[in-house]
Amino acid sequence: MNALGLVSTRLCAGLMCRRSAVNLSSLRFSSGMTLSHIDEEVAKLLQLKAQLGGDEGKHVFVLKTAKGTRDYNPKQMAIREKVFNIIISCFKRHGAETIDSPVFELKETLTGKYGEDSKLIYDLKDQGGELLSLRYDLTVPFARYLAMNKITNIKRYHIAKVYRRDNPAMTRGRYREFYQCDFDIAGQYDAMIPDAECLKIVYEILNELDLGDFRIKVNDRRILDGMFAVCGVPDEKFRTICSTVDKLDKMAWEDVKKEMVNEKGLSEDVADRIGEYVSMQGGQDLAERLLQDPKLSQNKQACAGLTDMKLLFSYLELFQVTDKVVFDLSLARGLDYYTGVIYEAILSQTIPALVSTPAEQNGADEAGVSVGSVAGGGRYDGLVGMFDPKGRKVPCVGVSIGIERIFSIMEQKAEASSEKVRTTETQVLVASAQKNLLEERLKLTNALWNEGIKAEVLYKKNPKLLSQLQHCEETGIPLVAILGEQELKDGVVKLRNVVSREEVDVPRADLVDEIKKRTL
Amino acid sequence: MNALGLVSTRLCAGLMCRRSAVNLSSLRFSSGMTLSHIDEEVAKLLQLKAQLGGDEGKHVFVLKTAKGTRDYNPKQMAIREKVFNIIISCFKRHGAETIDSPVFELKETLTGKYGEDSKLIYDLKDQGGELLSLRYDLTVPFARYLAMNKITNIKRYHIAKVYRRDNPAMTRGRYREFYQCDFDIAGQYDAMIPDAECLKIVYEILNELDLGDFRIKVNDRRILDGMFAVCGVPDEKFRTICSTVDKLDKMAWEDVKKEMVNEKGLSEDVADRIGEYVSMQGGQDLAERLLQDPKLSQNKQACAGLTDMKLLFSYLELFQVTDKVVFDLSLARGLDYYTGVIYEAILSQTIPALVSTPAEQNGADEAGVSVGSVAGGGRYDGLVGMFDPKGRKVPCVGVSIGIERIFSIMEQKAEASSEKVRTTETQVLVASAQKNLLEERLKLTNALWNEGIKAEVLYKKNPKLLSQLQHCEETGIPLVAILGEQELKDGVVKLRNVVSREEVDVPRADLVDEIKKRTL
Repeated sequence: MNALGLVSTRLCAGLMCRRSAVNLSSLRFSSGMTLSHIDEEVAKLLQLKAQLGGDEGKHVFVLKTAKGTRDYNPKQMAIREKVFNIIISCFKRHGAETIDSPVFELKETLTGKYGEDSKLIYDLKDQGGELLSLRYDLTVPFARYLAMNKITNIKRYHIAKVYRRDNPAMTRGRYREFYQCDFDIAGQYDAMIPDAECLKIVYEILNELDLGDFRIKVNDRRILDGMFAVCGVPDEKFRTICSTVDKLDKMAWEDVKKEMVNEKGLSEDVADRIGEYVSMQGGQDLAERLLQDPKLSQNKQACAGLTDMKLLFSYLELFQVTDKVVFDLSLARGLDYYTGVIYEAILSQTIPALVSTPAEQNGADEAGVSVGSVAGGGRYDGLVGMFDPKGRKVPCVGVSIGIERIFSIMEQKAEASSEKVRTTETQVLVASAQKNLLEERLKLTNALWNEGIKAEVLYKKNPKLLSQLQHCEETGIPLVAILGEQELKDGVVKLRNVVSREEVDVPRADLVDEIKKRTL
Repeated sequence: MNALGLVSTRLCAGLMCRRSAVNLSSLRFSSGMTLSHIDEEVAKLLQLKAQLGGDEGKHVFVLKTAKGTRDYNPKQMAIREKVFNIIISCFKRHGAETIDSPVFELKETLTGKYGEDSKLIYDLKDQGGELLSLRYDLTVPFARYLAMNKITNIKRYHIAKVYRRDNPAMTRGRYREFYQCDFDIAGQYDAMIPDAECLKIVYEILNELDLGDFRIKVNDRRILDGMFAVCGVPDEKFRTICSTVDKLDKMAWEDVKKEMVNEKGLSEDVADRIGEYVSMQGGQDLAERLLQDPKLSQNKQACAGLTDMKLLFSYLELFQVTDKVVFDLSLARGLDYYTGVIYEAILSQTIPALVSTPAEQNGADEAGVSVGSVAGGGRYDGLVGMFDPKGRKVPCVGVSIGIERIFSIMEQKAEASSEKVRTTETQVLVASAQKNLLEERLKLTNALWNEGIKAEVLYKKNPKLLSQLQHCEETGIPLVAILGEQELKDGVVKLRNVVSREEVDVPRADLVDEIKKRTL
C-alpha cells in the first residue's frame, strides 16, 4: 500500500451518500449487483442487435445517453444557471478565485485515493500513451494542482463535472456524471478563521437558494478520536467505529449499537459510553462543558478539538450564523483525510422523490432522510503534503455544495409552481401584421441588436400576427414591436405588452429607451 | 459502411485545422508519428519507473496533467470568463437557449461520423456495461439530442469541452481537451434568414472581442459542386477535389493545381478551369455575374446556390455586415455534411506563437496562416435525419467560435499589456493597524457581506498593516477599510484608496454606500 492508501474522497461520505447508497441498493433487491449486471448485458445485446440491423439490413441507432447520464434541456439549463449565479456570487463576495482542471487525470494520480470506491473510477481505454481516468472528485485534482505548482496560499472555487460508475438513482438526483461545486481555503492561518468563513458561506448559499429551513452540524475529527479513546475503543478500530457512528443520521441508536457490538466487536459497555457522547448536541456551551468532562479533558486530542470548537463558535457568533449551527457529537463523516473540523448541512424538510420505482420505494426510508444533506466538508491538513515529493504540508479547509440535489429540488419546485421558467432573455419580438415587410422587420431587429436590446424576429417572409404573438406567449417574451405601412409612414412603432395586450405608438427614436424602461 | 459513413465533423475542417494539422505534422518531421509514439512509450516507462519507486522504495508521483491538457489558473479563468461573457451575451441578445450533453456518448453514436479522424476519438475502457467514447465535437451530440427528443425547432448554443487524441500543439492553442462554442438554428424556415443571423453573430462577437480586423469568407456547397461539374470533374472526385481546394488558404494555386493533376488525376485543362473560378472574390455583384456565366448558369445546383447567395447578401446588407463579408469561391471547408452556405472568419493580423519549439518552427509558414481562422460553420440539412429512425429531416445552420484560439490571443494580449488581470472582484479589505482587533474586523466584514459588498479579511489575529496593504496591491483590491481604537470610538471607518493612498473617515452608517460609489 502506498502513502495515500488511507485517503478517500470528501464527498463520498455523507454528502452525496455514495458509499451508503451502494449498501442501500443491495438491501433493496437482495441480488442487486446481479440485476444491474443483467441490465448492462441486456443493453450490450440490444446495441449489438441495433448494429446488426433490422430486417432490411438497415442500420438502426440506439438513441439514448450513456447509463446514469442525462442531457440538460433549456429549462434545466435555466435553473442550473440561476443556481450557479447565486453560488458563484457568494464565492466572489468572499474573494475567491476559480481554477479548472482537465476532465481526466493520469490514472496514477487517482490510484489509491478512494479506498474501496476506486472500483467506481472510469478508466480510459489504453490507446497508446498515458493511462488515464476520469476525475472522481475535485479535491484530489486540487491537491495535485497545489503540489504541482507549489502553491501554498489560495482561496478558490471549482465547479465541474465528476464521474463515478455508481449505481445511478437519477430520480433522486444521483447520476454517474454529476457536478461538484467546491470552495476551499489553502494556507497556514490562525486557527478557525477560514473554517468559520466556510460555514458562513454554506449559511449564505442555503439562505439565498431559499430551500427552506436547514441546520449545519459541526464536529471535529480530534474530538471523535479522543472520545473513542476515552470510551475504550482500541486504536485500530477508530476508523471502522467512526463509519458506524456516521450511520446515526439514517439508523436508530439501537441498530448502530448492535453493529458496534455484533459486527465490530465492541463490548456493550464501550458502546454505551459512546452512546452517551453521541447523543449530545449544543453550541459553545457544550464545548465548554466537555472541556470540564473528567474523562475527555484528560485526552489531548479531544482538548485541542474542543478548544478550537469554542473558538469556532465565537467567530460564528460574530458571523451571525449560530442560529443554524449545531455542535453535534454524532457527526462523523467517514472520510479518512479530515484532520480537524467537519461539517454537514441538512435541509429540514424531506424532499419527495420526483418519480419512484417500486424498487426504489423499498429503500424510501433511507433515501428520504439522506436527500436532506446538501453540503459538507471539513479541514484536511495532510492531503496536499501526500502529493508533494518532499511532503510539504499545505493546510486546507473546504466545503462542497451538493449541487445536483439542489438542482433536483429546484426543478421540482419549478414543476410545482405555476410560474413559467423562461429559457431565453429576449425582450422584444419584431413583428408585422402585414405582408412584404420582412426587410423592415430585419432592419429594425438589426438596429435593436446594435443598441444591445435582446430581440428576435421570426424567420418567415410573411408570418401571421397570431403566430408571432403565440411565439411570445410560449417563450415569455414580454413585448412586441409591430411594424405596418401606417407606422412606417408615421415614423413610429406599435409597442404591445404581450400580457396586458395594451398597445402604444412609440416614436422610432424613443423605442430603445422605452423597451429598456419596460423590461428592467 | 452505414448511412452515416460520409458524415464528418464541422470543426475538423478549416476552423481548428485539425485535419490539416495532422498533415502538417507529418510534413514537419518526416517520421512524425514515430516520434510521437516514442514520446508516449517514454512517458509510459517513466510512469512505470515512478510507480516502482526510487532507491528507498518510496512511491513517487508524476505531478503532471495528461498529455495535451492543461489546468486553467485563476488568471486564465478570468480571461476565459470575460470571453465567455461577451459571447454568451451575444447569443442571448439573439434569443438563444442553451443545452448541455454528457461528456461521453455511446461509442455507437460517434462511430462512422468522423471518417478517418475516428482514430482520434477517446474510448473509455470496457468495465462492463455500455461501450462509451468521449465526445469529439458538439454537433453530433446536438443532432442526437434533436432526433432523440423529436425537436424540430430550436435556436441553441452549447459551450463545452470536446476531446481529440490529436498531436497537440499547445503553444498555438491546440489541445487534446478543448472548448467548443457552438450556435445553431434548427428548423424549417424561409431561405437565408437564419443563415444571415449566424453571420451577424460572428460579426458582432469578433467586433466585441476586439481582436483586430477580420474577414468572413462565404461560399455555398452547391456552387462548389456546380463549379466542379461544369469544369469537368468526374462526380466521384468532387469530395477529394473539394479538400484540395480547401488548401488554398495555406498553399499557392500552383501547388494546389499540382496536387489536382499529379495526385488526384485531373487533366491540366480541368484544373485550369477550376483555377479561374476559385480566384474570384466579391459580393452580391459576383453572385449576379456568375448567374449570367454561360457555363455555371446551365447547372441547376450552382444556380440554386447563386440565387441564395444573392438573397443572403441582401439580408447581410440590412444587417450592416457586408464590409467584412466576402463571397469567395475558393472557400471549400472539407466537411461532408454541409449542404448549402459555408463560411469561415479569419483574423487579418497573424498571431505569433507564444513559444515555438524548433520542430514547430519548421511548420511555421503553415501554422502562422492557419492561426487566423477563428470561426466557421455552415448549413447542414441532412445530419439530424441520419439519426432519425424514419429519416425525418431537420434543416440546420450553425457556427462554431474557435474559442481556444481566442483564449490564446487574449492571454498573449494580457501578457503584453501592462494592465494587470484581476482574478477576484473584491471591493474592499477590512484591515487594522493595531493589535487585538480581529473581532472588530470580522464583525465589520460580516456586515459588509450581509450588505452584498465583496469583502476580504486576512486570516490572522494581528496582521501588519503593511502586509494587508500588500495583499491589496497584489490582488488589485481598490479599497481598504481601516479600523482602529479611535475610529471605533468615533463610529467611523478610515476608507483608504489603495492606488492614490488618499484616506477619508466615513461614518459607519455611510460605509456601504461609499464603497459602492467608489467601486462602480
